[in-house]
Amino acid sequence: MKVVVLVGGVGGARFLLGVKAALGLPAVGEPEQPAGHEISAVVNVGDDVWMHGLRVCPDLDTCMYTLGDGIDSAKGWGRVDETWSVREELAAYGAEPTWFGLGDRDIATHLVRSRMLRAGYSLSEVTEALCDRWKPGVRLLPVTDDRVETHVAIEDPDEQRPRAVHFQEWWVRHRAEPAARAIVPVGAEEATPAPAALDAVARADVVLLAPSNPVVSIGTLLAVPGFRAALRETSAPVVGVSPIIGGKPLRGMADACLAAIGVDTTAEAVGRHYGSRSRDAEGILDGWLVHTGDDADVPGVDVRAVPLLMSDVDATAAMVRAAFDLAGLGEVTR
Amino acid sequence: MKVVVLVGGVGGARFLLGVKAALGLPAVGEPEQPAGHEISAVVNVGDDVWMHGLRVCPDLDTCMYTLGDGIDSAKGWGRVDETWSVREELAAYGAEPTWFGLGDRDIATHLVRSRMLRAGYSLSEVTEALCDRWKPGVRLLPVTDDRVETHVAIEDPDEQRPRAVHFQEWWVRHRAEPAARAIVPVGAEEATPAPAALDAVARADVVLLAPSNPVVSIGTLLAVPGFRAALRETSAPVVGVSPIIGGKPLRGMADACLAAIGVDTTAEAVGRHYGSRSRDAEGILDGWLVHTGDDADVPGVDVRAVPLLMSDVDATAAMVRAAFDLAGLGEVTR
Repeated sequence: MKVVVLVGGVGGARFLLGVKAALGLPAVGEPEQPAGHEISAVVNVGDDVWMHGLRVCPDLDTCMYTLGDGIDSAKGWGRVDETWSVREELAAYGAEPTWFGLGDRDIATHLVRSRMLRAGYSLSEVTEALCDRWKPGVRLLPVTDDRVETHVAIEDPDEQRPRAVHFQEWWVRHRAEPAARAIVPVGAEEATPAPAALDAVARADVVLLAPSNPVVSIGTLLAVPGFRAALRETSAPVVGVSPIIGGKPLRGMADACLAAIGVDTTAEAVGRHYGSRSRDAEGILDGWLVHTGDDADVPGVDVRAVPLLMSDVDATAAMVRAAFDLAGLGEVTR
Repeated sequence: MKVVVLVGGVGGARFLLGVKAALGLPAVGEPEQPAGHEISAVVNVGDDVWMHGLRVCPDLDTCMYTLGDGIDSAKGWGRVDETWSVREELAAYGAEPTWFGLGDRDIATHLVRSRMLRAGYSLSEVTEALCDRWKPGVRLLPVTDDRVETHVAIEDPDEQRPRAVHFQEWWVRHRAEPAARAIVPVGAEEATPAPAALDAVARADVVLLAPSNPVVSIGTLLAVPGFRAALRETSAPVVGVSPIIGGKPLRGMADACLAAIGVDTTAEAVGRHYGSRSRDAEGILDGWLVHTGDDADVPGVDVRAVPLLMSDVDATAAMVRAAFDLAGLGEVTR
């Protein structure tokens, strides 16, 4: 079976572990024998940032490290057994931002990536090269090879005036505390989807939306012209998994992002925001999984409630099987 | 007194410690009170290299770390308390050269430098910014802001055919073992001296040549058109210190470099290679210090023999005082 999963970072990576497990694959790494399944993750690039002259791709790396067994699983991002000498030295120079601390091991990834990008390779090619080492068992496909960066309009807490900051500055430096007045995927309008991402969606048997941030993760994917159209045109069913449980985000600060775009922090509101493929002009969902006990009426979308807490790989795999069921593909995993 | 010192890396940095001590300054760091002396080091850039997408300037950094108390003094280069996570990870990727291992702390320096260079700052400006942290007590002046890289023509040991390699590849990877057929400062002919370096030489009371490699350190400085002329034109006396003692290099593999340019590994031959300011069309020396017991007849140059082993800062300071004496400036340090 060909499965395409739309993902952001930490939550998306954990969801992918469950997708692999649901298909009987080892959650981490690659199976020794070809498995007859092909999992492709279309990954958000809106969090990517140039930092200290290095191109950092947090979502791609979180997926790569998680699936390749290199993640700091306590934090959910960054490298296990990390060291922090570079960060300490950069702080001593006083010439670089200190709020986005990169670990030494992680920096090696960004060095390889940055050198390849500067040599003219596309982000898709670079990601494939990095995955040669990590063997995530999932094809990690940046949604676009173009530069798309999520910027956030805030009242700057230091300068007491409005200004647009990179998503990471809002999220990491300011912990999403200053209210976002707008969230804009800068560059998205001029971007084109990466050919491999389009091709994966076109050839898919099923497309899943991971319970990632609907605004700055999934929303950025959908902001790339042509990618939303590809989701609407594929013959595969499209099933989303709600990142909102009982009116709260599963993790992270998705509520702060939803507020900025005028969407309530409920499973129903997010389902309606994604919309129905059959009924809405721009809708992308056929099915919508919500957490047991959450109500959601999403016209034109088949809604089902199951436990949605990704407490471990088994629980996540059960969610994925429910998504396959909702897509009418339950027999694959039975 | 205004002292200008021409230097390469490890030997040059140690010599500078002695220059500071000879003038009554703390060898490491900056004096608390202005001292009335100005020491400027014109530093070789021919060893500089782009590595992993980072601009690495070994001689500038060795001087900066040595004089700023950050050096690994056992090795003579690199940072004290260094960690090696990045190198380990780059090796795991298999996509980068592994023979030029950069430590994590050192990498922070190259990140700051590379980002500034890419933003359009000159190497002189970048070096000054880095020295804001290290406070070496010596103005470190790259001889040029242009890209000059020493390349070496060798019979490649892996490929069994002639090829030109970066100096670092010959020196570090191949330990200078394949004979150098030619040593070429690529880019030197198109380079112009950095204004601050020219200005320092013009205003100097004395110019010293550290006992650095006469070919790939001092030789590269002299290969930048206009810099040799500045040395010939300054009103300051120019005194060199022989890096060859008893027919052997003080350290490093200077003999392998001298052989490539057809100069014997003797104090006399190197002195003659530099030549007399008063007698030779391209000569730069007024005085030449050789090691006790070494004979050297260098026509038109005042030769004196004193102990030249830089075994500690005191011994090095004594060498420097002998150089000042030879320059007729002995009273400054008495």
